[in-house]
Amino acid sequence: MKKTVLAAVVVGGAVLGLSLPGALTAAKAKPAKAAQGKEACYECHDDIREMKESSKHAKLPCSTCHDNLAKHIESMGEVKPVTIIDQALCGKCHKAQYDSFYKVNTEGGARKEKGVPTGRSPQQDKLLAGHGFTFEHNEPRGHAFMVTDQFVVDRFQGGRYQYKDSWEGVNRTGKTWDVLVDKGADKKLPETAMAGNPTCIQCKTSDHLLKWKFLGDKDPKAKWDRTSNVNDVAKDTNNPVGCVHCHDPHGTQPRVVRDALIQAIERDGANNIFAKGGKTDLKVKDFRGFRKIGIMAKTDSRMMCAQCHVEYNCNTGSQWSDGKKVDYDNGRTNHMPLKNGKELLAHYKKLDFYDFKHAVTGARLIKLQHPEAEAYAGSVHDRAGVQCHQCHMPKIKGKDGKMYSAHNVSRPLNTVKESCLGCHPKFSVDEKRYQIESIRNYVKGKMRKAEFWIGKLIDTYAVAKRAGVPEETLAKAREKHEEAHVLWEFWTAENSDGFHNPDLARETLTGAIKAGKDGVKILEDAMAPKQ
Amino acid sequence: MKKTVLAAVVVGGAVLGLSLPGALTAAKAKPAKAAQGKEACYECHDDIREMKESSKHAKLPCSTCHDNLAKHIESMGEVKPVTIIDQALCGKCHKAQYDSFYKVNTEGGARKEKGVPTGRSPQQDKLLAGHGFTFEHNEPRGHAFMVTDQFVVDRFQGGRYQYKDSWEGVNRTGKTWDVLVDKGADKKLPETAMAGNPTCIQCKTSDHLLKWKFLGDKDPKAKWDRTSNVNDVAKDTNNPVGCVHCHDPHGTQPRVVRDALIQAIERDGANNIFAKGGKTDLKVKDFRGFRKIGIMAKTDSRMMCAQCHVEYNCNTGSQWSDGKKVDYDNGRTNHMPLKNGKELLAHYKKLDFYDFKHAVTGARLIKLQHPEAEAYAGSVHDRAGVQCHQCHMPKIKGKDGKMYSAHNVSRPLNTVKESCLGCHPKFSVDEKRYQIESIRNYVKGKMRKAEFWIGKLIDTYAVAKRAGVPEETLAKAREKHEEAHVLWEFWTAENSDGFHNPDLARETLTGAIKAGKDGVKILEDAMAPKQ
Amino acid sequence: MKKTVLAAVVVGGAVLGLSLPGALTAAKAKPAKAAQGKEACYECHDDIREMKESSKHAKLPCSTCHDNLAKHIESMGEVKPVTIIDQALCGKCHKAQYDSFYKVNTEGGARKEKGVPTGRSPQQDKLLAGHGFTFEHNEPRGHAFMVTDQFVVDRFQGGRYQYKDSWEGVNRTGKTWDVLVDKGADKKLPETAMAGNPTCIQCKTSDHLLKWKFLGDKDPKAKWDRTSNVNDVAKDTNNPVGCVHCHDPHGTQPRVVRDALIQAIERDGANNIFAKGGKTDLKVKDFRGFRKIGIMAKTDSRMMCAQCHVEYNCNTGSQWSDGKKVDYDNGRTNHMPLKNGKELLAHYKKLDFYDFKHAVTGARLIKLQHPEAEAYAGSVHDRAGVQCHQCHMPKIKGKDGKMYSAHNVSRPLNTVKESCLGCHPKFSVDEKRYQIESIRNYVKGKMRKAEFWIGKLIDTYAVAKRAGVPEETLAKAREKHEEAHVLWEFWTAENSDGFHNPDLARETLTGAIKAGKDGVKILEDAMAPKQ
Repeated sequence: MKKTVLAAVVVGGAVLGLSLPGALTAAKAKPAKAAQGKEACYECHDDIREMKESSKHAKLPCSTCHDNLAKHIESMGEVKPVTIIDQALCGKCHKAQYDSFYKVNTEGGARKEKGVPTGRSPQQDKLLAGHGFTFEHNEPRGHAFMVTDQFVVDRFQGGRYQYKDSWEGVNRTGKTWDVLVDKGADKKLPETAMAGNPTCIQCKTSDHLLKWKFLGDKDPKAKWDRTSNVNDVAKDTNNPVGCVHCHDPHGTQPRVVRDALIQAIERDGANNIFAKGGKTDLKVKDFRGFRKIGIMAKTDSRMMCAQCHVEYNCNTGSQWSDGKKVDYDNGRTNHMPLKNGKELLAHYKKLDFYDFKHAVTGARLIKLQHPEAEAYAGSVHDRAGVQCHQCHMPKIKGKDGKMYSAHNVSRPLNTVKESCLGCHPKFSVDEKRYQIESIRNYVKGKMRKAEFWIGKLIDTYAVAKRAGVPEETLAKAREKHEEAHVLWEFWTAENSDGFHNPDLARETLTGAIKAGKDGVKILEDAMAPKQ
Repeated sequence: MKKTVLAAVVVGGAVLGLSLPGALTAAKAKPAKAAQGKEACYECHDDIREMKESSKHAKLPCSTCHDNLAKHIESMGEVKPVTIIDQALCGKCHKAQYDSFYKVNTEGGARKEKGVPTGRSPQQDKLLAGHGFTFEHNEPRGHAFMVTDQFVVDRFQGGRYQYKDSWEGVNRTGKTWDVLVDKGADKKLPETAMAGNPTCIQCKTSDHLLKWKFLGDKDPKAKWDRTSNVNDVAKDTNNPVGCVHCHDPHGTQPRVVRDALIQAIERDGANNIFAKGGKTDLKVKDFRGFRKIGIMAKTDSRMMCAQCHVEYNCNTGSQWSDGKKVDYDNGRTNHMPLKNGKELLAHYKKLDFYDFKHAVTGARLIKLQHPEAEAYAGSVHDRAGVQCHQCHMPKIKGKDGKMYSAHNVSRPLNTVKESCLGCHPKFSVDEKRYQIESIRNYVKGKMRKAEFWIGKLIDTYAVAKRAGVPEETLAKAREKHEEAHVLWEFWTAENSDGFHNPDLARETLTGAIKAGKDGVKILEDAMAPKQ
Repeated sequence: MKKTVLAAVVVGGAVLGLSLPGALTAAKAKPAKAAQGKEACYECHDDIREMKESSKHAKLPCSTCHDNLAKHIESMGEVKPVTIIDQALCGKCHKAQYDSFYKVNTEGGARKEKGVPTGRSPQQDKLLAGHGFTFEHNEPRGHAFMVTDQFVVDRFQGGRYQYKDSWEGVNRTGKTWDVLVDKGADKKLPETAMAGNPTCIQCKTSDHLLKWKFLGDKDPKAKWDRTSNVNDVAKDTNNPVGCVHCHDPHGTQPRVVRDALIQAIERDGANNIFAKGGKTDLKVKDFRGFRKIGIMAKTDSRMMCAQCHVEYNCNTGSQWSDGKKVDYDNGRTNHMPLKNGKELLAHYKKLDFYDFKHAVTGARLIKLQHPEAEAYAGSVHDRAGVQCHQCHMPKIKGKDGKMYSAHNVSRPLNTVKESCLGCHPKFSVDEKRYQIESIRNYVKGKMRKAEFWIGKLIDTYAVAKRAGVPEETLAKAREKHEEAHVLWEFWTAENSDGFHNPDLARETLTGAIKAGKDGVKILEDAMAPKQ
């Protein structure tokens, strides 16, 4: 029995490439057969046999993905194998998927600032005043750019990372450090921020899967943790999110690896946003307390995508209770609420965490990430059992005539026929696009109204404060700001302009408008001349 | 003589399907011939003979559009015939026109809020603060949607009317209650208004032609009047504006039926905006004081379209003289000024009516509708005798090879060749479109400037009021706001971005800018430190 | 020797059509041979022989471009020849170039106001408050419209110049007064300015080359000077900038004629923005102190285009030192700094000149023109030796199959293949356009941020002034406004959205943001309650 347990851990080591000293003690007894292909590996790693032999990957020799196996076996585990995480390896067989992942949509260009009148968040610089996102915050691009876009943005580490080929690098994909250059720690461009942290990088790449303990806690076996220098981690980051984030490489099962997601699901397996009938199809494997992965019986891309497309906290902040700083040593700096916009403020208050204070009102604000999973949860499409990949990764015919799932993960508006009409056959592409755009038009209208009222609240606050309105009243207005902010920013941070859940969008955004109006009224009443 | 008068009324009854007790006394003497086709009807309705027999509809039996005729005749008029108003009936013969009416332009989607930076009225929420249009105010769609768009908008009755098929209903045309569902009087969505009234519905449908007394006055014979419950009227509204709004069904003459327009033209037949040489080609028939229609000798689509495409007042408001409420029992709640932007404020002051007070300044403002007719009046095109339909309903070749007038009534920019080049043959489509867009660019620039200055006036007012600037001065600033508002909103409410009358647009909008600047100066001077 | 000098002057007279009394004294001795073709002319004008005979224009008789030659010779120079400057003459041979110059891009229309939310300078009316550009300031069109666009704009002379054919004139090219009509000095449209001056017209046309002394100084031989009535000069302006602005008509050498540019280059021949290796390839010829032209050995379109595409001052203003007015009699009203955004404020302070005071803050502001040359100087492309024409006037195949340089001078985005891929062959058109748009996206983001902060500075200033913040503090804030303004407006005035020099754009615009923030802080600190 102990052997099995240990073997499981070894699998963990193999799967995750962990450096686990002592884990191979049981295996060390069998060096002789080690050099003889899969069977040699299976002698120690028998649960890999189980996963692999029943899968489409059964015939692949272990050396497909692992180097240094001979020495590993010879040394009885002392020498660690090298695990190749790079998606190019997977791409050798899964060519269409791999190529589509790196396909660049050349419409519109990169670095489209959101905070401009024609952008997704026209009043951003006012509404997020005091936050690093005001330095540069762009509309997103494809997954192929997720690492380089993150490092090159003006709010990341003072702008020290730049395109090697200047602007000709902007559409270059591939290894991070073929595309970017580090101008050095002394390089600090004006009007940049020093944002970025090891945790946020875990959503952008799979490179550190084997170097990162569950939740990024410190551990001698972990090369990186939440408190590591972000630049060191950045320089060790070579690829955007890999195939292994969603696909178990041994058994090809659908899986998730992102720690905060697994934690959030385990917090409430029966009632989290993915649960159906009180259960979540996620079997969590814990590797000796170092790492966890979650395996699904069936593909549920809602969870796979939710590894990144959620509101998560990865930065330092402060406590509602006493205003004290929450630093990277604290687990709350790697946290996924899995709550929608209506529930988030209460969640973060309970968690005793907020991100930053607004520069004008001093309200304690949550900086939202991209909560697509939470927005989608409970929507018409979700209740109908539709998952992310059905719309965003539709089956497309490849050059070889075979259908494959498009891994460029683009906007369904670009693939209405493939994404929508399978379920909605009575509409034409134009009609369905019209319906989609109508929802987005409507929700954009509500977002702009929310911005109008929050902006007015901020302006009125400044006036009220100068007019000597008492702190007690100001505090009430700040509370309204705090409430309105989360309800609003949820939707500018989210990328569907409300399509993922129009009803929730309406409810949340009108809530933001209402709170904004209430805040303005509190202040204007306080300033009104006594009659 | 008396018979003729009565017969005329009967015609009215027939044309309009009115239930006029006692109207058939003279006709009652001739029941015997009643069942024998048109001739039987003509025995009583001899003026219908006159209209019909000389027209293209001459050969149609009366039963084409009227049910229940046999009983009507047998009962000597006691039992009323049923008049079918639905445009589908007309569409049986006028197929191309009918089909084009329901053709949906699938570009861009519905529910495009005007009050967004990229919209037609970017500062709407500030400039209309306090008015229901700030809850949702969208760019218009085609006539096929005019009823459903009206009922589904957030400012209408608290949002109780929704698409039956959720957002898949957004491009569905047809009977109102096939498209929409009533969620009930208790349904009140947050951030909605309770706008809507029976009169405004008269511009959206022809369904109530026979149930509505002239100007919507109360009458036992009228099912609906201005004071009816808007929801009851809404639920009795099944079709968008019908063929009979503009085409007399018996005689095929061009006509108008909208009461406030007829009233406005009769107020000044010699000098109204449609008059040429001191006369208006509109023969008004009064049906025993119940209803009026206006028949033209020749098509004048300027009047036909002006049944709706005008500034009209259909809601309650207040009086300039004493601030008292003007309620639906008052005829001013169904009123068309037929005046352009320069003349409107004076007109409404004389009428002693304004719509609402601005939430910040308290200025008494006119809420403009869509004054295309007034904007167009006196323009270069108008003076040249061009009418609305020539540009908006150009002759198009149908599937059967025959030319027909496009009844989707779209933007001439979509049909420059057909709409423009007939009169302007020396330009290419691209060149003409360029000229059109240039006008719109120029006028849009002026609109944005007007918004800038009115916005600044509002902001400065708030500061001045808090600074204790005396009421006398504030009142002067409010007057400037009142003046600027009408001059500006005329053009954001109007849908041509100035093309209908570039000179008037320039004059009006620079007037708005000037008044805005004057208002700001009044307030700033009052706040300037004494020297 | 004296003869040579005089002959040079005669050449000047011939080249420039100058009326130089007494200049022909030496030539007067040879009337007999005067009527015998080129040789007759060369007898007096021997340096024209030198320029012409070695050039492609060698075979052209002088009468190609000069009328009245016989009388000129017969009268021994008393009667002046007529010099035809109209580009149509050149177009007889250079047809493709000529036709392309007048080619109209019919996308998007004219008179696109920059100061709208979707425009190039969304906050213009606030940031330029007090300046005439707030009356109308449009996105530029092609060279064919440069004169008519200048005269017809609302800020020019009260709007007295209008299209003859109303809006159908907006895309009409050709002679100014075939396109426009003068409504008379009494015509003053509301909300217009009286801008315009003789100097600014020198950048729009070549018509006055022979009537304008160097720098526009007063001279009995000059029909026009800086102090002339702008309307008189306007009415004498018939063509947009002509071929002779950049091409010497006798010798076909590349040249420049714009006086302030020649002055600026001569101020610092070794270190100006065009100099390479301490030298500028420009041989300046001075015609008896009346006019100068600059001849290049090789085409340097950076200088040719810089005749207009620079920041230049052509209007009156005031002095930093004492606030006194600088009027048109002063040479500073025809001045090109040839400095980039970082250096301009210091330059203008040294020159003791600023354009206007901001209406709200009273800051002394520079109104920028279109500093493309200064923006481009020192950029990656400039350092690589790329000149303006290579991107903006690429070689295109004409109808006759021959390649020619496109003289419509359009945006390279329209001709990526021809403009870019010659040097960047490894990219596709889509990829290169993507890179270009990315730069522009990024820089537009920075512009919007600069506008946000300068706008906030203006708003805060108004509050601070009313709050009684001492003048000493206000003065410091104004200085920040002055600094921020130049750094920002340089880029909205410049037409590349940063593409010409992304690094400079970043540096300059973040400088504007920084100065804006600093100004806000100065004011807010002054208003903060003492603790």
